Amino acid sequence: MQRAAALVRRGCGPRTPSSWGRSQSSAAAEASAVLKVRPERSRRERILTLESMNPQVKAVEYAVRGPIVLKAGEIELELQRGIKKPFTEVIRANIGDAQAMGQQPITFLRQVMALCTYPNLLDSPSFPEDAKKRARRILQACGGNSLGSYSASQGVNCIREDVAAYITRRDGGVPADPDNIYLTTGASDGISTILKILVSGGGKSRTGVMIPIPQYPLYSAVISELDAIQVNYYLDEENCWALNVNELRRAVQEAKDHCDPKVLCIINPGNPTGQVQSRKCIEDVIHFAWEEKLFLLADEVYQDNVYSPDCRFHSFKKVLYEMGPEYSSNVELASFHSTSKGYMGECGYRGGYMEVINLHPEIKGQLVKLLSVRLCPPVSGQAAMDIVVNPPVAGEESFEQFSRAHQMAPDMFYCMKLLEETGICVVPGSGFGQREGTYHFRMTILPPVEKLKTVLQKVKDFHINFLEKYA
Amino acid sequence: MQRAAALVRRGCGPRTPSSWGRSQSSAAAEASAVLKVRPERSRRERILTLESMNPQVKAVEYAVRGPIVLKAGEIELELQRGIKKPFTEVIRANIGDAQAMGQQPITFLRQVMALCTYPNLLDSPSFPEDAKKRARRILQACGGNSLGSYSASQGVNCIREDVAAYITRRDGGVPADPDNIYLTTGASDGISTILKILVSGGGKSRTGVMIPIPQYPLYSAVISELDAIQVNYYLDEENCWALNVNELRRAVQEAKDHCDPKVLCIINPGNPTGQVQSRKCIEDVIHFAWEEKLFLLADEVYQDNVYSPDCRFHSFKKVLYEMGPEYSSNVELASFHSTSKGYMGECGYRGGYMEVINLHPEIKGQLVKLLSVRLCPPVSGQAAMDIVVNPPVAGEESFEQFSRAHQMAPDMFYCMKLLEETGICVVPGSGFGQREGTYHFRMTILPPVEKLKTVLQKVKDFHINFLEKYA
Ligand SMILES: Cc1ncc(COP(=O)(O)O)c(C=O)c1O
Ligand SMILES: Cc1ncc(COP(=O)(O)O)c(C=O)c1O
Repeated sequence: MQRAAALVRRGCGPRTPSSWGRSQSSAAAEASAVLKVRPERSRRERILTLESMNPQVKAVEYAVRGPIVLKAGEIELELQRGIKKPFTEVIRANIGDAQAMGQQPITFLRQVMALCTYPNLLDSPSFPEDAKKRARRILQACGGNSLGSYSASQGVNCIREDVAAYITRRDGGVPADPDNIYLTTGASDGISTILKILVSGGGKSRTGVMIPIPQYPLYSAVISELDAIQVNYYLDEENCWALNVNELRRAVQEAKDHCDPKVLCIINPGNPTGQVQSRKCIEDVIHFAWEEKLFLLADEVYQDNVYSPDCRFHSFKKVLYEMGPEYSSNVELASFHSTSKGYMGECGYRGGYMEVINLHPEIKGQLVKLLSVRLCPPVSGQAAMDIVVNPPVAGEESFEQFSRAHQMAPDMFYCMKLLEETGICVVPGSGFGQREGTYHFRMTILPPVEKLKTVLQKVKDFHINFLEKYA
Repeated sequence: MQRAAALVRRGCGPRTPSSWGRSQSSAAAEASAVLKVRPERSRRERILTLESMNPQVKAVEYAVRGPIVLKAGEIELELQRGIKKPFTEVIRANIGDAQAMGQQPITFLRQVMALCTYPNLLDSPSFPEDAKKRARRILQACGGNSLGSYSASQGVNCIREDVAAYITRRDGGVPADPDNIYLTTGASDGISTILKILVSGGGKSRTGVMIPIPQYPLYSAVISELDAIQVNYYLDEENCWALNVNELRRAVQEAKDHCDPKVLCIINPGNPTGQVQSRKCIEDVIHFAWEEKLFLLADEVYQDNVYSPDCRFHSFKKVLYEMGPEYSSNVELASFHSTSKGYMGECGYRGGYMEVINLHPEIKGQLVKLLSVRLCPPVSGQAAMDIVVNPPVAGEESFEQFSRAHQMAPDMFYCMKLLEETGICVVPGSGFGQREGTYHFRMTILPPVEKLKTVLQKVKDFHINFLEKYA
């Protein structure tokens, strides 16, 4: 340190600016030359080190993108540089990222986004009217009619309205209020923001946050950042990872010894477990939260990822309302959704929303204030969220392509259209089994030759037309 | 409370799911009916209140988007509903949002973004090749070649490379390393992330963060959120809001009584003051940070907003390197840039970057871990950042339109082109004064009539051509 100080006093007393006037790149060259000759001597201790840094941040553990993922990145670079490995590519199965795995984006969503991005395209005949309609609506609600303006911190008004309408539809009529909708930078942002507001107290009255184990690591990370107390409740692996209210009871009782359990986080459908909670289970959880005075966080980003025919997604909001006023006007709930999952898989746009129920009006003000500090969520992500909640409807131009894209197997769709448009009834190939990514149909050739000729001509015309429309 | 509990026990003992089986909307109707009859009785105290909430969040003050801005939103809604006021629109001069004020987005940037959003457009002849080249490069670096994939938490590799190349050019050759670049969700995100890592200690050793007064309110807000100690230094209003190192010295000395001053934040060019720091001033600040062992934060989001011909922007990074190895290998610096300001004004995309210098390798790991928790910055914002740092260059198709758009007054550009293409030298009208938004040139009519005829024909041809190209 003495030496360093001396060095500097020599190099840095009062001087005229012109003494720094040598060419910049030669100065840089000199800098690195000096560094090479005596790299250690002029190095002081860093101000920011593992010892001096924020201990809560240091304590954060984050598995989904930890060292394994960094290593994966390195291996990819090595493969690119031609280094031989026992494999030729890295398969990133660590994170739920559909498009990185090759899923194509939904055409309609991207059309609307492109129109919003570059409104000159609104004059282009190659974009469908319904996409233009959506884009115009979004742009009209943006400052300067541009995605490039900051939006309100809570999100663009008309998009919050669309979200509210979506929730109302989804929940069979249980009303949603746009004022309770907050657009976010992915669900991650909503979850960490509401937790940030919730955590308080010191010592034994520090806020405890109950999370499922296994959990999605965002929760433990944010709890650690906020220096809150993580309260684990275990999902029942023997029972398809079901949530058992007795386990919640055990966890909360034990936690009360050393913290103030105030928040209960639920992930439904679960990640990483995939389990879908029954309606009865959700009721039990809500009753438990009511009883124990817990603020409920319902992470419902996988609401469109229910695959088993025996399961159905029930939103916490809907069940809460159906349980009657004692619950629906008392239990405080924040629920989360995202553009990242479902059939859209638009992770990169960082779109999401949070709906809050029974939030104290003063706290709503605090929430907006807190969100304002970071100005607004990305407006393109907000627009993507709008399309997730406001997709094409029957009668609109893009409806068929869209429905096919996110629901029907292509061969089923093809055969359905063929039947509707020509009356010819054939069987989708998938009923018989086929190589992945190829599509077939089966038809009998029993009709008499003349009839078969017309049939085949019809199929041919239909086929050409179909490819033009949907390829 | 007794009553509420009784109500519930009646309503919510063990039961079969079917007892909730009435129609959902009638349940909702019942809920609101009950609420209307006795709205107060069934209302319990909220869990989350001003008293119980995170006191640090409560202490946050945020002026830029506080009650005034909420009020502005209300007034706008009233105007929309036809309510008469002594004015017909709200002018939002509270926030630096160029596009909300009517500035048009830069065509080239939006073209690249549209191409990235909807890659079908890569086949469209109406987009220029250089925009397509940029879009292809970005998409190739994205997972699944899509903006819809999560990127690496630090940001897309090739965009970080472009940022590093930009910094190197900007700083006259001082090298920048892509590994030191972190793409962020606007500059706001970078600033709060690095502060989050920096804050530690308790009582008198709690981290002090020095900020200019007047400041941009993000700083005080984040300091409050993190429960750090705000240490004010005052800019010198009498001296065009200059930063005076003696004032830094005073502030740090006083602060040492009650905290551990560890971070020095600089905003240059200043907001809200607009002042541009001289090279000498920056040297003094760096020397001071070196001396006092302060971690430097240089908020340089306004680096392209220098208007006075007497001022020039100098980056802290460049000056640091030019001051020699004792500084350049010791002073820890994080500097910030954004897509929101400059001539782009793309606030809504939430693009930004942070460059770190002399960050301890272990801290870099911590930083990536922390960023990973929220997965990644919006990929469309990253793409926007790429165009800010990687605009069209001379020889590329879009160069002229782009340069005109962001630098030259239109009449100057017109006269320059006229001279280059026809050899006719005229004078831009702005030299004489003119009504805003109209453009002129002045030419003498001294040439002999025959010559004048060819001259005017040339001007006419040029004019038609010019309008076709740039209008
Ligand atoms: C359960 C759960 N919640 C939240 C998120 C965050 O998603 P995003 O921030 O992309 O919306 C994820 C992402 O994988 C998740 O699995
Ligand atoms: C000085 C300063 N820093 C940072 C920001 C944040 O900008 P953004 O988060 O949009 O990049 C602003 C915005 O006005 C600012 O004025």
